[in-house]
Amino acid sequence: MGVKRPDRREFLRGGAALAGGLTVGAVEPAHGQAPEPERFIRGEADMIAYGERSPFVTSVRIPHPPGGRESPDAFGLVFHVAAPLQDSVGTITPSSLHFVGTTRGSLMPEIDPSEHRLMIHGLVDRPLVFTMEDLKRLPSVTRLHFIECAGNNARATHKTVQETHGMTSCAEWTGVLLSTLLEEAGVKDGASWVVAEGTENVKGASSFPLAKAMDDCIVAYGMNGEAVRPQNGFPLRLLIPGFEGIFNTKYLRRIKVVDRYYMNYNDYGHLRRDSVRAALGYQIGPKSVITFPSGGQKLSGRGFYEVSGLAWSGGGAITRVEVSTDAGRSWQEAEIQGTAHRMAHTRFRLAWNWDGQETQLMSRCTDEVGQMQPLPTQVAEHFNAAPDPSYRVPGLDNTIQPWRIASDGSVHNARA
Amino acid sequence: MGVKRPDRREFLRGGAALAGGLTVGAVEPAHGQAPEPERFIRGEADMIAYGERSPFVTSVRIPHPPGGRESPDAFGLVFHVAAPLQDSVGTITPSSLHFVGTTRGSLMPEIDPSEHRLMIHGLVDRPLVFTMEDLKRLPSVTRLHFIECAGNNARATHKTVQETHGMTSCAEWTGVLLSTLLEEAGVKDGASWVVAEGTENVKGASSFPLAKAMDDCIVAYGMNGEAVRPQNGFPLRLLIPGFEGIFNTKYLRRIKVVDRYYMNYNDYGHLRRDSVRAALGYQIGPKSVITFPSGGQKLSGRGFYEVSGLAWSGGGAITRVEVSTDAGRSWQEAEIQGTAHRMAHTRFRLAWNWDGQETQLMSRCTDEVGQMQPLPTQVAEHFNAAPDPSYRVPGLDNTIQPWRIASDGSVHNARA
Repeated sequence: MGVKRPDRREFLRGGAALAGGLTVGAVEPAHGQAPEPERFIRGEADMIAYGERSPFVTSVRIPHPPGGRESPDAFGLVFHVAAPLQDSVGTITPSSLHFVGTTRGSLMPEIDPSEHRLMIHGLVDRPLVFTMEDLKRLPSVTRLHFIECAGNNARATHKTVQETHGMTSCAEWTGVLLSTLLEEAGVKDGASWVVAEGTENVKGASSFPLAKAMDDCIVAYGMNGEAVRPQNGFPLRLLIPGFEGIFNTKYLRRIKVVDRYYMNYNDYGHLRRDSVRAALGYQIGPKSVITFPSGGQKLSGRGFYEVSGLAWSGGGAITRVEVSTDAGRSWQEAEIQGTAHRMAHTRFRLAWNWDGQETQLMSRCTDEVGQMQPLPTQVAEHFNAAPDPSYRVPGLDNTIQPWRIASDGSVHNARA
Repeated sequence: MGVKRPDRREFLRGGAALAGGLTVGAVEPAHGQAPEPERFIRGEADMIAYGERSPFVTSVRIPHPPGGRESPDAFGLVFHVAAPLQDSVGTITPSSLHFVGTTRGSLMPEIDPSEHRLMIHGLVDRPLVFTMEDLKRLPSVTRLHFIECAGNNARATHKTVQETHGMTSCAEWTGVLLSTLLEEAGVKDGASWVVAEGTENVKGASSFPLAKAMDDCIVAYGMNGEAVRPQNGFPLRLLIPGFEGIFNTKYLRRIKVVDRYYMNYNDYGHLRRDSVRAALGYQIGPKSVITFPSGGQKLSGRGFYEVSGLAWSGGGAITRVEVSTDAGRSWQEAEIQGTAHRMAHTRFRLAWNWDGQETQLMSRCTDEVGQMQPLPTQVAEHFNAAPDPSYRVPGLDNTIQPWRIASDGSVHNARA
């Protein structure tokens, strides 16, 4: 019946494109449709209670930084796990693949929610303690938000997008606005900062400005339609949208309203910053990265591809993404998928016909307050002006990630 | 330090509400915060590769209809699994808890994606066969859509919202628009219908109008940020947004463009409808249901609660949801969460102070084309006018679901 595979080079150029008989790749045999099934999904326990993914889907998280499970440093064990962004589709990161950052090795508490409490105290009129049941009775919100670890820094030695950018993920979070709880407790005059503490060995405490606490922070018990996952703070996690990941306190058990900045364990990364740099560090991005094609993947030949990636910013919603397919010489406007949410991963896409020549792909985004993602050279200048050059500020490294497409279709980190 | 639990009756009425000393429920002991953790999340395999949920979270799907694993009928085994909507938060159904409908018992194929093919043929200029790799190179979209089985009918004997409404779920689907594939194949003059066939024993075929195929249908390989789950059609599922669930062909392997309606296995439910009723049956809703509080749950006493539920329509986006807390005598406008997407579950919420008296809660929604969810009595009239009253039209039963709150706080199906 003359069935053949469509010609990707000509795809979308017009209905008549295939008439010329140009084809790339093998022509399918006449019996082109899928074979009859021989295997069937296994037994009823899986089928009913809580479904599993296909055994053919093997995308997994990896330790971060690449190559090691543990990277001891001056503060103890650091144990991070990066999400496989190279396999991502859409905007949500599946909870099972959401990146994980810890401040204290693998000692993440397994908490019985019936025993968990959240205390609001400090400079408030009425100190309060909430059970999980209490919290679930209160007015709630559901919002898409990314979290990104400040350690999500693309280095020249990183080979894949999981290595360069895997320490960010995006989920649909549900919970109570922190402002709702603080209004009920009644914030006293003179309060200006908030300390959030988690149920971890080192408390996982962070300090952040009261203005942010009264704005858009979420005390979250829901993640992607079910309970927050254990590795992400079950039963309760603080979301501080757009701030460095370490502020998003997991296993949240205490909110203390205070009158000045309190230095806590999780602030170690900010120790030697001056106040201006510290304030900048609160806010991630704007940042974007192409997830397909990305390092370690391989194009199967010249022709049509959809370039696709993620953009996000601590400054608000992504308003524009541009993609260059010629190593930055020219830029094309990418399509943004649906509604770009504030402080959320935003999927972008661009149709591209690869001519088979070596080139570089890169993306850059702009957010609603007008910030544009910089070139690496621009950030290098910024870094060199730092008061303490010995302190690496990875959270501020939101530079453009270039991917080199070799003429054999293989994709490489162009920073290498 | 005088810590006490907030008074839910007064919650949100104003900052001074608690000053009067009114409390409901126990006052927390002074040591109100969460205890130190004693257990920790288990080993590294789970922690790295693909995370799991907390052992304290036990929400599961159940067979549908309630009570039986299999309900043999004239067409063979029917095996359905319903989602635990009573535990839902936000708008996304986790893939592991997405409802499952099958037309042929538990024989769902386990497909190797490298062997899978999608053929587009029939009244087209260029029959085409796509591998999964081919499809993933093409222009894609990501959209939130519900799917609902026509068998999702609330009966008086159903006790929980999982039983009454659990045969609907909502996910973020990613894939190629069917119109993109059909435009590449070139639809011939005279074509008017499309037949979609899946890789199942009975082919899982459905017929739908070409106009719908060229509108918003998605050939989906992604679901909630990863591959479509096996029970939902891995590696490829057809999304026909807003149509009865059975049209959303799983394990999609063939799209045939034809010039008239073709009767297929999956159309059995439409056999005895006249054309007008069949056309109505394509489109689900408008429909809404309160998920909290819902049948089988129990309120812990008078005071503040957030009433929360889901609304959806095959007619487009939900524009309005109203909630009655007095058995339908008066209605209040509920808050709709964020952007209501077309043919997607939409979370709604209403603040409610329960006075401890017996009452009924109900919700009704309106969609963008102005359809409003009817009362049961309105639909009963409609059903009685059916040309063949022996044929139950469950897909059309989008009537208001009333939940009775007894004075002890227990919640019951008010239809019983």
